Amino acid sequence: MKQLTEGVHTAAYRKILIPLFLLLFPLITTAQTSVPEEVSNADKIAELSTGLNTVWMLLAAMLVFFMQPGFALVEAGFTRSKNTANILMKNLVDFMVGSILFWFIGFGLMFGIGDVFGTPHLFDLDAMSNIIQNGLPIEGFLIFQTVFCATSATIVSGAMAERTKFSMYLAYTIAISVLIYPVSGHWTWGGGWLSNADPDSFMMSVFGYTFHDFAGSTVVHSVGGWIALVGAAILGPRLGKYGKDGKSKAIPGHNLTLACLGVFILWFGWFGFNPGSQLAAAGYGDQTAISHVFLTTNLAACTGGFLALLVSWIKYGKPSLSLTLNGILAGLVGVTAGCDLVSPMGAALIGAICGTVMIFAVEFIEHRLKIDDPVGASSVHGVCGSLGTILTGLFAVEGGTFYGGGFGFLGAQIFGVIIVGGWAALMGYIIFKVLDKVHGLRVPARIEEEGLDIYEHGESAYNH
Amino acid sequence: MKQLTEGVHTAAYRKILIPLFLLLFPLITTAQTSVPEEVSNADKIAELSTGLNTVWMLLAAMLVFFMQPGFALVEAGFTRSKNTANILMKNLVDFMVGSILFWFIGFGLMFGIGDVFGTPHLFDLDAMSNIIQNGLPIEGFLIFQTVFCATSATIVSGAMAERTKFSMYLAYTIAISVLIYPVSGHWTWGGGWLSNADPDSFMMSVFGYTFHDFAGSTVVHSVGGWIALVGAAILGPRLGKYGKDGKSKAIPGHNLTLACLGVFILWFGWFGFNPGSQLAAAGYGDQTAISHVFLTTNLAACTGGFLALLVSWIKYGKPSLSLTLNGILAGLVGVTAGCDLVSPMGAALIGAICGTVMIFAVEFIEHRLKIDDPVGASSVHGVCGSLGTILTGLFAVEGGTFYGGGFGFLGAQIFGVIIVGGWAALMGYIIFKVLDKVHGLRVPARIEEEGLDIYEHGESAYNH
Amino acid sequence: MKQLTEGVHTAAYRKILIPLFLLLFPLITTAQTSVPEEVSNADKIAELSTGLNTVWMLLAAMLVFFMQPGFALVEAGFTRSKNTANILMKNLVDFMVGSILFWFIGFGLMFGIGDVFGTPHLFDLDAMSNIIQNGLPIEGFLIFQTVFCATSATIVSGAMAERTKFSMYLAYTIAISVLIYPVSGHWTWGGGWLSNADPDSFMMSVFGYTFHDFAGSTVVHSVGGWIALVGAAILGPRLGKYGKDGKSKAIPGHNLTLACLGVFILWFGWFGFNPGSQLAAAGYGDQTAISHVFLTTNLAACTGGFLALLVSWIKYGKPSLSLTLNGILAGLVGVTAGCDLVSPMGAALIGAICGTVMIFAVEFIEHRLKIDDPVGASSVHGVCGSLGTILTGLFAVEGGTFYGGGFGFLGAQIFGVIIVGGWAALMGYIIFKVLDKVHGLRVPARIEEEGLDIYEHGESAYNH
Repeated sequence: MKQLTEGVHTAAYRKILIPLFLLLFPLITTAQTSVPEEVSNADKIAELSTGLNTVWMLLAAMLVFFMQPGFALVEAGFTRSKNTANILMKNLVDFMVGSILFWFIGFGLMFGIGDVFGTPHLFDLDAMSNIIQNGLPIEGFLIFQTVFCATSATIVSGAMAERTKFSMYLAYTIAISVLIYPVSGHWTWGGGWLSNADPDSFMMSVFGYTFHDFAGSTVVHSVGGWIALVGAAILGPRLGKYGKDGKSKAIPGHNLTLACLGVFILWFGWFGFNPGSQLAAAGYGDQTAISHVFLTTNLAACTGGFLALLVSWIKYGKPSLSLTLNGILAGLVGVTAGCDLVSPMGAALIGAICGTVMIFAVEFIEHRLKIDDPVGASSVHGVCGSLGTILTGLFAVEGGTFYGGGFGFLGAQIFGVIIVGGWAALMGYIIFKVLDKVHGLRVPARIEEEGLDIYEHGESAYNH
Repeated sequence: MKQLTEGVHTAAYRKILIPLFLLLFPLITTAQTSVPEEVSNADKIAELSTGLNTVWMLLAAMLVFFMQPGFALVEAGFTRSKNTANILMKNLVDFMVGSILFWFIGFGLMFGIGDVFGTPHLFDLDAMSNIIQNGLPIEGFLIFQTVFCATSATIVSGAMAERTKFSMYLAYTIAISVLIYPVSGHWTWGGGWLSNADPDSFMMSVFGYTFHDFAGSTVVHSVGGWIALVGAAILGPRLGKYGKDGKSKAIPGHNLTLACLGVFILWFGWFGFNPGSQLAAAGYGDQTAISHVFLTTNLAACTGGFLALLVSWIKYGKPSLSLTLNGILAGLVGVTAGCDLVSPMGAALIGAICGTVMIFAVEFIEHRLKIDDPVGASSVHGVCGSLGTILTGLFAVEGGTFYGGGFGFLGAQIFGVIIVGGWAALMGYIIFKVLDKVHGLRVPARIEEEGLDIYEHGESAYNH
Repeated sequence: MKQLTEGVHTAAYRKILIPLFLLLFPLITTAQTSVPEEVSNADKIAELSTGLNTVWMLLAAMLVFFMQPGFALVEAGFTRSKNTANILMKNLVDFMVGSILFWFIGFGLMFGIGDVFGTPHLFDLDAMSNIIQNGLPIEGFLIFQTVFCATSATIVSGAMAERTKFSMYLAYTIAISVLIYPVSGHWTWGGGWLSNADPDSFMMSVFGYTFHDFAGSTVVHSVGGWIALVGAAILGPRLGKYGKDGKSKAIPGHNLTLACLGVFILWFGWFGFNPGSQLAAAGYGDQTAISHVFLTTNLAACTGGFLALLVSWIKYGKPSLSLTLNGILAGLVGVTAGCDLVSPMGAALIGAICGTVMIFAVEFIEHRLKIDDPVGASSVHGVCGSLGTILTGLFAVEGGTFYGGGFGFLGAQIFGVIIVGGWAALMGYIIFKVLDKVHGLRVPARIEEEGLDIYEHGESAYNH
């Protein structure tokens, strides 16, 4: 049997296994190499996905950076030519100082581990890299977050324009970059209590929802806007803004062409601000999301601007360029919180509401509160940032009140808006009051009259 | 035999199959998991390809959006400071209204199913998603197409500057966004009759070629340009443009620095307009195409501007900045139709021809036709848009007359230019004539003299 | 035996092979299709990687192109309004002519094969495609390199502003685009002797390191800067710049708002200039690198601007806007050589050093050398470009002197800076001296006094 068996074996080997082997050979060898290659392909795809997401994030960071000249031009254009160098300097210095401080400590305060605020990282990006596990390069993520911080900081310069000491603005800039913005940012985007989705967390217990602010209507814009309002109030109005009868007088800006260019640049930058906040473009869901956010952002800008145009036409008899410009910004600010959750129609409505409300907010702040905000920053960023965040609670396709979601999500949104707005306003109040007591926020009347450019910076923005 | 066979079987099983199994085991188990993973890798690659294409499309949409301030600055810079707020408002409102209307109906008219025009989608993007099967997110595609529509719309504001009622411009904007642009756009880009490549279609029967307009020399620019010419003609020249002797007088723009910045911004935006129109970057063919289109676009801009500089130097004794700026635009407009089909040398020649012809077109329209186009929009966009589309028939590396392609493609190009141009001019004529009869297109002489800004918008662009 | 064997065979076939076949069938069929698909997946991944890298490169090219209006605005803003059209024309013409000439010959001189300079390609991009094997489309790579060449060219216009004949500037532009920039560029980026890493190459023999200039502190900026210095020296100062006592008088620029916008645009464009120079984003290493370079670039800009602000505050009593603007540029120029090799802290220090040194360099050139550089281009681009390249030898994390790397790399950096700077200055000297002798570089005094715009271009940049 043995021999036979062996013979059979041999025969089987020859007649079965050889052809089988030949048949399977390419498969076997392929398989042998395909195992690692298979793995390697999946790895390479993951690598490439991260590459695409990184490019998207960095593109967004570039665009949000470019919002800085947008703000600078809007603020310069809406104010007088004798203070232009000063307003430009403020827009420069808040970005420069903010970038350095956010890299030093703000980034950790915002995204580090912690309940009320994150652990300061003190330049240690490797430590942050261990905390943030989204696969994106930590240095790119830092840059992306830095330009958002700078946006929040720079909003304030417009409301306090034409009368604030440069040195005091520098001090405020430090405060917002290392304290105000990172801490409330931590609550929402840094894993803090407003965004804690554990079933027994405060937000989930009370509202059944966490606070949602996709790209920063509240976290970025209303923080800047409320500090702006408080700062403008503490400073007091510009000389000549209110007559002896208490009525406000228009102080027209020196160059609406620059303001208009600034708004276009901001609008352009917003396509990084909002779609970029998805922080990814590789997956189908990401692709749909960034396209959706791009569309909702643009529609809100258009309806915001167009409604402001119409309302100003009806209210004042003529369609106003400066109100249209602020209407566009109001729509953009308003849709930023919910641009991912609302439908295009919802976005158009949010923009329209914000563009309309902005006009009345400007009037209310100027005529009732008698606070002099030369560029309307508190209305655009404070009021419409808060309003848009709350409207997200109504218009969100899932969870929104208008879509049968009840009042839980709406409540979470209102709560978050109050908490973050209250924090920003309170801290702004403390900081500006202290600065005012210690050193004085405001330039002397003579300097204000003759212009801050010559006295504060030794040069005039315009010559022949 | 049975037992033996069984014995052999057992032996074979043990001696053959066990080692075979051990040999194949990793392969089998790999295979079992590799089948879905294999599929999944291919799927993921497809997903990632769409992701890259989406990012490319959205980047292009951002850049084309950014052409809006480019146009606004060119038009503002080339006109007088008393009308600046007005021209800025027009550039804002056509984009805002255009975005809303294209989302509402224009997108369906252009890309929906239909012969002469597409089926209106009336906000229903899901329906459009079923029609357009290029894998790109439908909302992103809508945004991309929206910014092209807005480009066409905004061209007209320059030619009609300094004398048109704002309300009438608003009415025109509606007409171009919901009718003129989408319909002729449908013929070329929406699957309509000019691009129907069925062997027995009209274009193939007559010319053997369909009409080719890669990124919109005709579809976007000449449509805007011809409406601009008709509008400027119906409006009549600005007060003081032609003396009693009938000779035209130069009315210099108020700020060539802004105009120059506007041209640079347009040039920058054109790198989205043309390379972006490939709508893809993932495949090798796409990568080569977008690089090629980038190069041809830039070369045509350079030769267009440089030839305008040289011709103005020879013709007028000095190299003119404003003509150089328009020469750059002429080159860009001209190469847009064929930037994918012509060689770099062909693009350089098309740019040079368009830059030169533009100067003579400006003269002809101003001195012979006595039509007052303050910014030269009809020459740059109408004449050079049409000319560039026709030159594509000569310079296309495949099918072009100069490359031995005969006259079929050239004929298709000429035919398309005439049809689309005729449509735009005719519709523009009807709309402006009706508006003029019903309400009057033009502001009263006193308003024109004192400036539209104060009377139409209640504010001046410039103050101190 | 035969029959038995056959019987066994049959049995084995039926009982072993059939189940085996059934077991392996999906695997075999999968394998048969999976082999090409496997290959195809790896190929597709490679294709997609190149696609992402192409998009990154073209995005960078767009951004670097956009630096052109940045330079134009900085130079226009820092000079007088009577010369604005002229300075804008110079910024346009150097880009237009440079693009054409680099496509014609410069690209080959820089990247073709050769020791001292590359073989001219004379429009033949296919030939270049064979030489450059990085997988990126050759036309895209040409565009990317073209915008770098144009950056170098355009730097000179500022230093020679307000007194140079337009025709002479045109002649210089040809020289830098076809000779000066491509040749020294070849030494560093085109495989020439400064970057030759063969063990027995000159650089390796002498220093043990090759010259490192990641994105062009030396190759682009110092080349432009040193030519600018030489040109300004040969031209002589503007009328009225130096009093009879030899003391310099400030000639303020006409519009610091434009200058500030220009700096913001340049800063924005630098995020293409530096991170884009990685020319890839697909691999993990690339993603980390572009993020790192983005961060270091921004930090150096911030510290450069902030230190210039502080130093001007201390030195002159007031924080100067124009010096802050130049400080930002100084930081950006300085970090460009080593943005890939230094840590964020190193970048911040390089920026701070360059921002500080720039102020003293401006003073030295103006007061000691008595060379009139209206915009400070030689200090910002020449001095800080060279300084930043040398500081890379100190701050590079690997090889830098401060990190224990000894003096080899530092020596290579100093050597490269001297060689390239010497080449640029020498060639600039020869060209400007020849142009001056043959035709005269400078406009007559009367034209200089009344402004170049009217006399050279027949139009004024500003009207009402």
